[in-house]
Amino acid sequence: MKYNNSPIGIFDSGLGGLTVFKEIRKILPDEDLIYFGDTARVPYGNKSKDTILRYSAEISKFLTGKGVKIIIVACNTSSSLALEDLQKEEKIPVFGVIEPGAKRAVEVSCGGNIAVIGTSATIKSRTYSRVIYEEIESLSEHEKGKFKNNFNFKIIEKPCPLLVPLVEEGFLNDEITKGVIAYYLDSVVKEKPSCLVLGCTHYPILKDLISEVIGKDIQMIDSGIETAKTIKCFLEENTILKDGTGMGNESFFVTDDPEKFKGLGEKFLGRAIKNVAVINLSL
Amino acid sequence: MKYNNSPIGIFDSGLGGLTVFKEIRKILPDEDLIYFGDTARVPYGNKSKDTILRYSAEISKFLTGKGVKIIIVACNTSSSLALEDLQKEEKIPVFGVIEPGAKRAVEVSCGGNIAVIGTSATIKSRTYSRVIYEEIESLSEHEKGKFKNNFNFKIIEKPCPLLVPLVEEGFLNDEITKGVIAYYLDSVVKEKPSCLVLGCTHYPILKDLISEVIGKDIQMIDSGIETAKTIKCFLEENTILKDGTGMGNESFFVTDDPEKFKGLGEKFLGRAIKNVAVINLSL
Repeated sequence: MKYNNSPIGIFDSGLGGLTVFKEIRKILPDEDLIYFGDTARVPYGNKSKDTILRYSAEISKFLTGKGVKIIIVACNTSSSLALEDLQKEEKIPVFGVIEPGAKRAVEVSCGGNIAVIGTSATIKSRTYSRVIYEEIESLSEHEKGKFKNNFNFKIIEKPCPLLVPLVEEGFLNDEITKGVIAYYLDSVVKEKPSCLVLGCTHYPILKDLISEVIGKDIQMIDSGIETAKTIKCFLEENTILKDGTGMGNESFFVTDDPEKFKGLGEKFLGRAIKNVAVINLSL
Repeated sequence: MKYNNSPIGIFDSGLGGLTVFKEIRKILPDEDLIYFGDTARVPYGNKSKDTILRYSAEISKFLTGKGVKIIIVACNTSSSLALEDLQKEEKIPVFGVIEPGAKRAVEVSCGGNIAVIGTSATIKSRTYSRVIYEEIESLSEHEKGKFKNNFNFKIIEKPCPLLVPLVEEGFLNDEITKGVIAYYLDSVVKEKPSCLVLGCTHYPILKDLISEVIGKDIQMIDSGIETAKTIKCFLEENTILKDGTGMGNESFFVTDDPEKFKGLGEKFLGRAIKNVAVINLSL
């Protein structure tokens, strides 16, 4: 059996990627993890493709400099717009959060409508629609038939730009946040989707509020959980798991104040965050 | 009579400073204006002092490179945290938006309570409180007496971090925005302030909604209007007005997509925006 003891690199525009980090840690407790949050430039979701490409490339360069064995783009906006470029540029494997979520949505929907919510940049890129259609095409003829026989099949993509600021400001269980969720999702619910992809890593922390608005019949897909499963399979298949047991090391790099990151980050992780350092990428 | 035909530099984290730009243009129609919006790194208001200092210094350097005669920091967050540093570093005069607004608040309040709303970083800095107390100290004994005789005099500073994202996302006349304003301001109104300083250049575009929440008895102070008056006086007193008539030139520099800036920026200015170029400050 071969092993690879290098760390896994995970990055996001800010705090949201911690929902992915948490799922990775849950099913890969031994691995060393390096998290990068670009908190001095957050949010990405309302910015242009060129800017997101540039920021994502800078962070990947930083992580490869730290000797990571794989990179996980734990940000839907970067995954939508920059993943292919990063995969071309980097010599190590780079994973996004779109494909695992899209694959799971196709599995659970069984031909029913699929809804996706995300930032403006993610939704505008139409990446989810493209990847969901690719996943459907890759199904067996029998499974594909379920979609082909639903002549009204549609993918409903809805940008929800205010949810990231609400989460970043700590409005996590609030009437205002519930009102904003209803404002965005009432029209989505009317399309009777079978599932709702939480296409932004900030959204899983709002699961309970979203559930109150959409009801119990629409299954929520958490990209973080699906991505963690994908990563575990990949490490196993390529025999690059870490050789060791016990909880792996964790280090965090941010571009703005580490104290704010620690404070709100603990709400994401459900435990204290240590080893946070500040990095100035433009130097 | 002497003149100075160099342009005036105005900068903000994003779009908000256009409310200041608009007031400057209104009373100084001849002047050439250069506006810089740091749209790739917006917002500033939830970031740390170090980061805001660094961004503000980079932009000032860019503007002085364009040969401006003065710089207006049309962003309350930068004005609160970076103004003194910029004034030390730059050889040309640098003005912020805090002092003009604070001065006007002291004038109109006549000893009554003063409320200030702003971003988290602005409010946390306590700059408004400091400057308001300095303005009170500079009054005549008679005027100062009005404050000294009000034994309950207080300054109410309230951070309203969601208002910038709401404006940047175009929720300008919306029930959700009104709900958020009420959420922030109900407790402020209870303190019966005589006036409310709109301590963020994004807020003047929400004047009507804010007025619905706070009523007609609390006078709103728009820093943009007060800053424009201050600048006009300064140019006149120092005989560095532009020698010319007719509408001055305007150019705009942003760090992210110019199209989005043009789209929402027109709502701020009430007219089309031309001459927008993209700048990558980190190169």
